[in-house]
Amino acid sequence: MTRIRAWAAQAAGRPLEAYEYDAGSLGLTEVEVAVAHCGICHADLSMLNNDWGLTRYPFVPGHEVVGRIVALGEQVKNLRIGQCVGVGWNSGSCMYCRLCLSGNQHLCGRVQPTIVGRHGGYAERVRAQSAWTFPLPPELDARSVGPLLCAGIAVFAPLVNYDVKPTARVGIVGIGGLGHLAIKISKAWGCEITAFTSSDIKREHALRLGAHRVVSSRDPAAMQAVAGSLDVLLITVNVALDWRAIMAALAPEGRAHFLGLVLDPVPLNIVDLIFGQKTVSASPTGSPSAIATLLDFTARHRILPEVEHFPMSRANDALKHLEAGKARFRAVLDVDFK
Amino acid sequence: MTRIRAWAAQAAGRPLEAYEYDAGSLGLTEVEVAVAHCGICHADLSMLNNDWGLTRYPFVPGHEVVGRIVALGEQVKNLRIGQCVGVGWNSGSCMYCRLCLSGNQHLCGRVQPTIVGRHGGYAERVRAQSAWTFPLPPELDARSVGPLLCAGIAVFAPLVNYDVKPTARVGIVGIGGLGHLAIKISKAWGCEITAFTSSDIKREHALRLGAHRVVSSRDPAAMQAVAGSLDVLLITVNVALDWRAIMAALAPEGRAHFLGLVLDPVPLNIVDLIFGQKTVSASPTGSPSAIATLLDFTARHRILPEVEHFPMSRANDALKHLEAGKARFRAVLDVDFK
Repeated sequence: MTRIRAWAAQAAGRPLEAYEYDAGSLGLTEVEVAVAHCGICHADLSMLNNDWGLTRYPFVPGHEVVGRIVALGEQVKNLRIGQCVGVGWNSGSCMYCRLCLSGNQHLCGRVQPTIVGRHGGYAERVRAQSAWTFPLPPELDARSVGPLLCAGIAVFAPLVNYDVKPTARVGIVGIGGLGHLAIKISKAWGCEITAFTSSDIKREHALRLGAHRVVSSRDPAAMQAVAGSLDVLLITVNVALDWRAIMAALAPEGRAHFLGLVLDPVPLNIVDLIFGQKTVSASPTGSPSAIATLLDFTARHRILPEVEHFPMSRANDALKHLEAGKARFRAVLDVDFK
Repeated sequence: MTRIRAWAAQAAGRPLEAYEYDAGSLGLTEVEVAVAHCGICHADLSMLNNDWGLTRYPFVPGHEVVGRIVALGEQVKNLRIGQCVGVGWNSGSCMYCRLCLSGNQHLCGRVQPTIVGRHGGYAERVRAQSAWTFPLPPELDARSVGPLLCAGIAVFAPLVNYDVKPTARVGIVGIGGLGHLAIKISKAWGCEITAFTSSDIKREHALRLGAHRVVSSRDPAAMQAVAGSLDVLLITVNVALDWRAIMAALAPEGRAHFLGLVLDPVPLNIVDLIFGQKTVSASPTGSPSAIATLLDFTARHRILPEVEHFPMSRANDALKHLEAGKARFRAVLDVDFK
């Protein structure tokens, strides 16, 4: 039995307040992590507001956790007390279904997201299955690395899953928490990068981060000029855009890949899709092996999210900052329980 | 200069009438084929009615041509007079762009469909670039093989392009000209086959052709029962269906592939797509090398379209038969110019 102090919302739309819960006994294959830092993801906001109808209150957000292992379940063999680790969107899966056994644990029908039906990382401690707990490379600053565990793997997984080549011409739609990492990662991957944003400030950031050109998706002439020029589009926004113009930016055999939870149906023009032999795909986070590969890759290339820090006791201010679209590019909470 | 007798429509919605045109001189890399048989494809009907706004009148349909070579352009090195060959949806491409040079000639920006802006195979002769003219294997009956050149390659290309494995669970939506070949080909490919049709007659045909089970896409309970069970869907219809229920039939990582020109936008639910890591794709016909590979594969497995024959002088009756949905499963016109 462990009492854990945390920050929780008591109902949809309510601010976070100090909260304490009993975590029960530690599972045989679980580890307990003393949280040091936890990134703020848009999914935390959506869950706080119960946008997806999945939230149970009191609700403790947080799924970009960085900390040190303080307890090990009896069956855990691959981790040790004191190790610096990360935990992301998922914290467990069944490990016996065909998807788990084939390395697609993130698609398991019993996958356990860190903040759905259980408490997350805006807390002094959090638990996760050992397979979903990742030793962090010493090359990556623990204070900033957290967002790689969710935003980072989201944009990295399609490069791995679809065998995107360094010769690919990659378009990145939306330059925020996911998009800025997509630029950094696809830059290190060797790709040609076109950033799509309608913000002048983000245009400058995109060029600084490594984009080769920036296009406003709201400018029809600019969209026309890039028609047929991209192999892969990583779509990180969750709002409606002119999807036909976006799809038209793809070259024959191009792929548009959705990473943001666009809630309105996207009207897909099948004739355009057929004659360009194009593909539309989407993915959630990635598998444990993909996350471990991402950490290797980002360590070698010294890729870190750009983050702003807030003490966890000011999580409500940080959430407002993110909600206002002001985060450059991700906010990280630093634990400060008294 | 060659005068060619043919069957042409003088305007949208008009029946075919006897017609003669001057084909000009034969191109250096072209061959001229004396037509023996020509399949009827739904695209012929769409073009006759100018459904796609691409038709030039007088219009000679026909792009599933089987015949013998009667003339060779000066630069043609790989074919000979008298050879039995086929010509499909495309009859030429630029052969110098990057798509042509990389083996994706069917995606070439200058690709020349056999019946767009030129005259097709409801004629005594037709011409095609030598690279788009395919020697037919002697194992395949010339009277029936025509529809492989369009309907056949349409359903075969995705199996090759997306590396579909013989272990895949394949769903085939719509059991007509394309769908019946999709069953035969994916059966020989080694796959588990689920046919989707709401017709009792087609249900029997699908089972006879090799489907392991048949599901009515209009029966919500039956659709619910197959949810999450398929790896690939080959969608051969061009009408609106309950797309969300169809997509739900896919297992995680599944692919829905469109082959029919569905003209209304398909509303794509991105949340479903993300959490199942699913893919939607589409393709037109295939490349010359894919068509040659299809002919090898169908010759080895003795796969032929099921066809009904009409003399070409009765092409209007055959078109009405197809339009009424009565063809089992493809109509082929046999040349009978007096």
